[in-house]
Amino acid sequence: MIINVITSIPDILDAANHGILGHAIKNKQITLNIIPLRAFSDRADGRIDDRPYGGGAGMVIQPHVMSKAIASIGKSHFIELCPKGQRLNQKLARSFAKKDNITLICGRYEGIDARIEPLIDQKVSIGDYVLSGGELPALIMIDAIGRLIPGVIKTESVENDSFENGLLDHEHYTRPENWEENKVPSVLLEGNHQKIEDYRLMQSLGKTWLNRPDLLLNRKLNERELALLVKFMQNHQRRGEDYD
Amino acid sequence: MIINVITSIPDILDAANHGILGHAIKNKQITLNIIPLRAFSDRADGRIDDRPYGGGAGMVIQPHVMSKAIASIGKSHFIELCPKGQRLNQKLARSFAKKDNITLICGRYEGIDARIEPLIDQKVSIGDYVLSGGELPALIMIDAIGRLIPGVIKTESVENDSFENGLLDHEHYTRPENWEENKVPSVLLEGNHQKIEDYRLMQSLGKTWLNRPDLLLNRKLNERELALLVKFMQNHQRRGEDYD
Repeated sequence: MIINVITSIPDILDAANHGILGHAIKNKQITLNIIPLRAFSDRADGRIDDRPYGGGAGMVIQPHVMSKAIASIGKSHFIELCPKGQRLNQKLARSFAKKDNITLICGRYEGIDARIEPLIDQKVSIGDYVLSGGELPALIMIDAIGRLIPGVIKTESVENDSFENGLLDHEHYTRPENWEENKVPSVLLEGNHQKIEDYRLMQSLGKTWLNRPDLLLNRKLNERELALLVKFMQNHQRRGEDYD
Repeated sequence: MIINVITSIPDILDAANHGILGHAIKNKQITLNIIPLRAFSDRADGRIDDRPYGGGAGMVIQPHVMSKAIASIGKSHFIELCPKGQRLNQKLARSFAKKDNITLICGRYEGIDARIEPLIDQKVSIGDYVLSGGELPALIMIDAIGRLIPGVIKTESVENDSFENGLLDHEHYTRPENWEENKVPSVLLEGNHQKIEDYRLMQSLGKTWLNRPDLLLNRKLNERELALLVKFMQNHQRRGEDYD
């Protein structure tokens, strides 16, 4: 998969060259092309922005500069990272992971001149908060999409992640078995795979019910899931924990 | 403000040293302390993770390693970046920006051993999608929080951003005035400040109504805002645009 990124601060994208994502780039599962916006400036000082018409704070990226950068790429799916866009979720990430070539367009300052809109296929927002530019959201997109490309990580890992089955992930435990009087739940040590699966699904359903009940509204529960959720609720009530 | 980050891939955090955030760090408005988790490994090979009890894919960060890293920091507000957490929004970012010292804890692989939960004050998620680790979400947090610290950017810029007033930001235009037959809206060129303000608020209300009607459900509109939104709706219908 080819991911192009148009940016005025290319150095930020170096953060993609680490961990799982870095491996995928080294192994050519992902080709990351960083396109520096300043290369398309028509001004002696290399600037790409100017003051907004109508006044106000901040600077706006000039339309002809961005338009030339976009034209330099050729055929692609052009996505602007922008707080006004469609919110990224796991389903949207999966739809992008199926494409051969996408381009992530990073605004900065007050944004990009609105007249480039016809050149953009889609606007995407990573969440309802304000950031300094589109570069960090582009990295989030590259990570969320990259790990869904076949071969980048083990399929089993992907299937069990939070949101992949509409639920939050269960908790995880590793060595040591006893740590400062905190023991690993005994069911995980007994080797009964059916019991372990039930326990993990129960925790997954229970944590979702406690922390993100909105996710359960959009998801049908089968009989086994319902029984496990009821069991979690009963245990929860017995322990007298707060409903956080 | 002091922001500590506990991470197993410190290099990713280099991305904070650019743009507005980089300036704020250079000017000591933000002190960023990166704490490499591997320094707290008790194994000859420096590893910090092990296989999960109960089986399954992926590795889990060991509780005693993370616990020692947390203890090394002293008094702080400890936030784990985690898909199971409370979702980040502008209000939450503002609440963090008021603190003197926060610590961002980055998981990797399948996560951190659940027994460290009592050491964490809060879990935060930047959105409903799966990422390889907490480092990119930590960068998002640093950016969203950092720009709200007084003096980091102009107050006027902050006030007009998307979400700050419960609406999406209006569109922006800059030079040239005529670009490939696309003109800047004439109201922005005429210098009537009241008209410009009305136009921008109308666009802001209209774009929110089209793209994020859920935001309007949680926000009261005053008489002026209602009148402008109705005007936007009428223009919109007349132009016969798709309701995107």
